Formats: sequence, structure tokens, C-alpha cells
Amino acid sequence: MSPSEITCKAALATAPNVPLEICDVIVSPPQKGEVRIKITHTALCHTDSYTLSGQDPEGLFPAILGHEAAGIVESVGEGVTSCKVGDSVIPCYQACCLNIENVQPCKFCVHPKTNLCQAVRQWTGCGIMKADEKTRFRKASDDTPIFHFMGTSTFSEYTVVHEVAVAVVNPKAPREKTCLLGCGVSTGWGAVYNTAKVEKGNTVAVFGLGAVGLAVIEASREVGASRILAIDTNPEKFEVAKKFGATECVNPKDFANEKIQDVIVKMTDGGVDFSFECIGNVDVMRAALECAHKGWGESVIIGVAAGGKEIATRPFQLVTGRVWRGTAFGGYKSRVEVPKLVEKYLAGKTMLDEYVTHQMKFEQINDAFDLLHAGKCLRVVLSMDE
Amino acid sequence: MSPSEITCKAALATAPNVPLEICDVIVSPPQKGEVRIKITHTALCHTDSYTLSGQDPEGLFPAILGHEAAGIVESVGEGVTSCKVGDSVIPCYQACCLNIENVQPCKFCVHPKTNLCQAVRQWTGCGIMKADEKTRFRKASDDTPIFHFMGTSTFSEYTVVHEVAVAVVNPKAPREKTCLLGCGVSTGWGAVYNTAKVEKGNTVAVFGLGAVGLAVIEASREVGASRILAIDTNPEKFEVAKKFGATECVNPKDFANEKIQDVIVKMTDGGVDFSFECIGNVDVMRAALECAHKGWGESVIIGVAAGGKEIATRPFQLVTGRVWRGTAFGGYKSRVEVPKLVEKYLAGKTMLDEYVTHQMKFEQINDAFDLLHAGKCLRVVLSMDE
Ligand SMILES: [Zn+2]
Ligand SMILES: [Zn+2]
Ligand SMILES: [Zn+2]
Ligand SMILES: [Zn+2]
Repeated sequence: MSPSEITCKAALATAPNVPLEICDVIVSPPQKGEVRIKITHTALCHTDSYTLSGQDPEGLFPAILGHEAAGIVESVGEGVTSCKVGDSVIPCYQACCLNIENVQPCKFCVHPKTNLCQAVRQWTGCGIMKADEKTRFRKASDDTPIFHFMGTSTFSEYTVVHEVAVAVVNPKAPREKTCLLGCGVSTGWGAVYNTAKVEKGNTVAVFGLGAVGLAVIEASREVGASRILAIDTNPEKFEVAKKFGATECVNPKDFANEKIQDVIVKMTDGGVDFSFECIGNVDVMRAALECAHKGWGESVIIGVAAGGKEIATRPFQLVTGRVWRGTAFGGYKSRVEVPKLVEKYLAGKTMLDEYVTHQMKFEQINDAFDLLHAGKCLRVVLSMDE
Repeated sequence: MSPSEITCKAALATAPNVPLEICDVIVSPPQKGEVRIKITHTALCHTDSYTLSGQDPEGLFPAILGHEAAGIVESVGEGVTSCKVGDSVIPCYQACCLNIENVQPCKFCVHPKTNLCQAVRQWTGCGIMKADEKTRFRKASDDTPIFHFMGTSTFSEYTVVHEVAVAVVNPKAPREKTCLLGCGVSTGWGAVYNTAKVEKGNTVAVFGLGAVGLAVIEASREVGASRILAIDTNPEKFEVAKKFGATECVNPKDFANEKIQDVIVKMTDGGVDFSFECIGNVDVMRAALECAHKGWGESVIIGVAAGGKEIATRPFQLVTGRVWRGTAFGGYKSRVEVPKLVEKYLAGKTMLDEYVTHQMKFEQINDAFDLLHAGKCLRVVLSMDE
């Protein structure tokens, strides 16, 4: 019996900069190479907020946002072999087409230096599915098609994603926690392990103390960084940063007449071995680069900058040995590596519970966005009725 | 018998943007940790021309320019152990304090990722010597002190440099050729081997087809790059680029309505594995970064940009996996590695003669600068009377 349409609740982004509308949507059955997932938990991330604000030039409306979630496979489309009904899964906005029967991996997936699978990128970037270049969502009230978002659209009780975007994880893992591995926390960890490759004894500076920044701090402590400088203009975040592993906290506002990069360079006898920008501010990206040590310091951009803003520096900064990098999803080849991160958490080797500061009902999603905007939370996890 | 003052000919940069003045200068004896070298051959490099033009904010006048040369040790100061009178040497503007008896290497020299020795940087940057913070040159006619340049000042029959800046090389090597290993050619080779670490089968784009760019091409061919794109707005340079190993030549002027980075991305199915900027133009630096392949492409800045000009790009370029680097002296730890480059040349494993397009007398140095400015030469080598 082939799967049929499902009518369920979703939080609809109807237009830029207006609250989400909880309404009934119709979710089509998964087509060839697609998976329909019952979302059990979803968190909010700044990228959702960014697109909702209307600043994202590629933002489409109406859409179902959401990309940091966990759920259970409800049904699978033709040819799907890498997951089955009932599997506990994490949707991955950054797909990975490795290790799927009868699928020839893309050139990005076979390349050792990148995780930026392009198998479905051209469709997810347009809010549609590859099989027929259409959406699987429409509004129950008037049949208006609703765009997908980041290939995940987890602000819905049910969603349809490409098979290449489904990480099958240990069913014993609590989804109300592991949902965070769909974006921010994995991104921070991976920036340290995969992108920067921080080593024991290195010095680290982390700009921005949200969930991503704290994950960078946590991973830096795990690899044995000798100093971990946590930098934020909100000193209320310093206590939690220390809990995650920061050895020193710095508030740029305490140095009104000095550039923060100069402050860090002085504090660290020439600069840090690695710096991480976890905000999305191009001026901070420059500061992060310029506080890296001459000769060998590397800076990793993690935050996503709004609009068309550009980063700039004097080329001398690079000619004298600094390296400027970026990372997306922490360099993890998602479908293959997210399950391992779940196991690492289950083995007690990582924090995760500590990133969840609020648990709310899905219906409270607009209140959750208010918390996010107020900077009062790390992660709010919304649970769907089960 | 301690060495005494020497009066000899030098080419004096008296002020920005006026021809050099060949005149008699008095060269003081080498002090503690210093070496006096009889320069036998010196080439001209764009950095000399840049400083002479007055655009270099750190340029000092009057000064003796020149930093790409070869010579013979004439005398050594107190405590010098790593070279002796009569040694065939190459002065290194980028010093290296490794492997010298009774010298504790600086933290840069012991670091595996950098060659930017800082042992004498604070003095060479000010045109003076470390021992007494004074210059070893003065004008014979009126005793005016003359600044050193880049710690080398090779536009003089005799010069004084710090011991950490002296590479002792095989005396059988022809100095009229190996002088080029003091800057441009080594820089290009090292950018490929040390900084980018290009591997067999990689694709490469080289912006700017002067000596440095050709050295990048030569080294890329040696490591087995599958495609080597040579890019220059002067198509007269294409024939020689092919001789050095370019597989394709591209003139940005042939694509008036298209950005050169877009042209390269199209030609290479997504971009090159490695790109090199060998000009010193911030717009070209951006183009070089943006023609690197999404996910793994790396771009190396080699050229020195004039004035305070800045590089810029969208952070998205880095977040999607490109890496932006720079290199100085190709990452070679100079005193230790330049002698090996000389051996490699003597073993017939590198080109070098081919970079010398003109040989002239030292007295013709202003004519040589004219050739350089006209873009009509790769390297002009000036010989001193012996
Ligand atoms: Zn996110
Ligand atoms: Zn792929
Ligand atoms: Zn040193
Ligand atoms: Zn040079």
C-alpha cells in the first residue's frame, strides 16, 4: 500500500517579518528517493530567524522553516534503501550522498576535503524536491503550495526530505536532545575537529557565545587547548562559557579605545593559534582573523553574514602567514558522521543536554523566537504531540 | 687583524621616485653577529621598484635597495660561526636563526608552520643593524648615514647583513644564476611546495606571468598538476609561460563582459584546486580566491599590494570551503633551505638560467629598472666588477 497524503500542523512562514502561522498543511507522499519523517522535536536556529526576517536574499515565502530536528521515518519513496519506516533519524540540511545503494556519489562527497554534497543542492536551494521539481507541502485551506526550506522544513509535524538528507541514528538516543546535532552543536564541534584541526596545547579564541560558540569551546577543551578565550559583548554569557571550558572571558566593550584583535594579540603574546567567528558579523570576522598569530594562526568563519556584506583585511595579514577559512556543518559528511556523534553522546563523551535551556510545545514557536531574539536562550527545543 | 672600513660603489636611493645615484659609500666593518659580503651579482625585483617609487609607507631614504643577490663573505664580525671568509653566499631578506651555534632559535623558527623568523625583524624593518641600532653605510662625500633595506642592501659592491640572513651555498654554483634564489624564484617554487602543497593531478591557476608566476608554473608542472592555467593581460607572456609548463593561457581582456573568476570556473568545471596571485593587485587577489573550487579550492597570495589597499570577498566564499592563504619567501626557512635549492639546480632538476633575460653591468642599474617597468624582462642580473 503506497503512502497517502497527511494533513497535519505546521508553522507557516507566510511573509517576511511576521509571526509564524500554525495551520493545517497537506504533506504529499514521498516520491522516488524521498523520505517522509514524523518530526518529534525541533530546535530553533539563527538561520531560521534570519530567513524569517526577510534579510536572506534567497528566502522564499510561503515556506516551512526549521532545520535542527529529530524524528521517525513514517514512509519512504521508491528506491529508498538507506532508511526504513520506524527508523530514528536526524534530517540533515547539508546532504551527503555517500554509501547509498545504487547512488553514484557526487564529486564533493568523494573528495576528502569537503562535506558540501551537491546531490540535491540545486533543488533545495529553490525550495523544491528533485524528483518533479515541486513542493510536497500545500496549505489545507486553499491548496497554496508551500516551499521547503534548507531541504528539511522541520517546523511541521511531518516533512518530506531527500534520502541523501536522512541520517539514521541509534533509536535509544533521546530525540529531544539529539535534534541539536542537526545544526549548531555539530557545526561547532566539527569546526574544531575537522576544519581547524585544533591540537593539544593550542590557544583558541571564540567570538560569540551562543550554542555554536559553546560547542567550539567544548571541543577545544576536549582536544586539550591550553587557553580558550571566550569573547562576547554580553557578559551574562561568561558564566556558562566557563562551564563549557573557557579559560578566560573578554568583553570588547571593556576596551572602548582598543580594537578587540589588538587586545587578544596582547593577551596571548602575539595572537592565538586558532580563532572562530560564531556570530555572522563581518567586522568580527576581520577581528578574528587579525587576532590569529602571525606565521601560523588560522581563523574559521562559522557565522552566516546577513545580506551581501563583505569581509576585508589587508593582504599583509595573509602574506604574513595567517589562514582564513570557513566551515559549513563543521565539515562533517552528515549522513555518515551524525550517527557517530549520536553514539559519542550516548557514550557520555560530549555535552548536549546542557545546550537545551528551554523546552516548549510546538505551538509556542513564536514565543520561542522571542526568546531567541532576546538572547535569553541557548537552544529552545519544541516537542510535537506524539 | 680586524676588518676595516671599505669604500666602494653603491646605487643610492636618495629620494622617492628619482633614479638611483651611483656613488662611493663607506661600508663599516661587521659587528657582533654580522657578516660583510662582497656582492658579485644582484637582480632587481618589484619590491625594490615599489619602495623606490615612494608607495611603500615603510620606505626609508636615503637607502641602498636590493635583496636578490649572491656574493662572497669578505669578513665576519665577533661570534659569527655559521659562515667564514670566502664562503659563497646568498643574502636572505627573510632571516632564519636555526642551526647557529650559541643562538637560541626564535619561536617562529622552531614552529613547523612558518618561516617568518623574527630574530632581527625589528631592526631590519627600520633600516638598521641589531648590534648598535645603527647603519653600516654612509656616503663617502659627506658622511650621511644610509639606511639598509630588507636587511640585505645588495645594490652595493659590499654590504653588511646579520649572520641569520646568510645562506652558505655550494661554491661551484654560478652566482650569476643562483642570485635569483634570494627572492622571486624561490618564492614561487615554495608557494607550490610548502604553502599550497599542490599534488599530482591538481588543477592550478596562476595570475601574473613574471618570474614568480613562472616559478609557480614550473613547480606545478614538476609535481604533476593536470592543468596549469596562466593568466595575464599581456599576451606576449604566453609563449614563455608555455615553455615553463602552462597548459592554457587566458587573457582577461578577451572576456570584457565577464569576470575572470567566472571564466576560470567555467573552464574548469567549478574552479581550480589551487590559485596563486603573483601580481600584488587586490582585485586580482579576489579573483584568484573566487576561481578556486567550492569545497576545497585554496588561493595563495604572493604579490605585495601597494599602500593600504585591502582584499575583500563575501564570507560565503570561505564558508563554502575555499581557503585564503599567503606566503612570504615561499615558506622556505631561508638559511637552511636555500642551499638545498642551489643543489637542486646544480643537479639539473630545476630551471634557473631561463629566468635571466638580461645581463648588465651594475652601473646600468637605472636602465635595468626601465626594463622592469616596461615589463620587458623576467630578471635582469647585474654583475659587479670582480
Ligand atoms: Zn542552523
Ligand atoms: Zn554528495
Ligand atoms: Zn628565527
Ligand atoms: Zn623580491
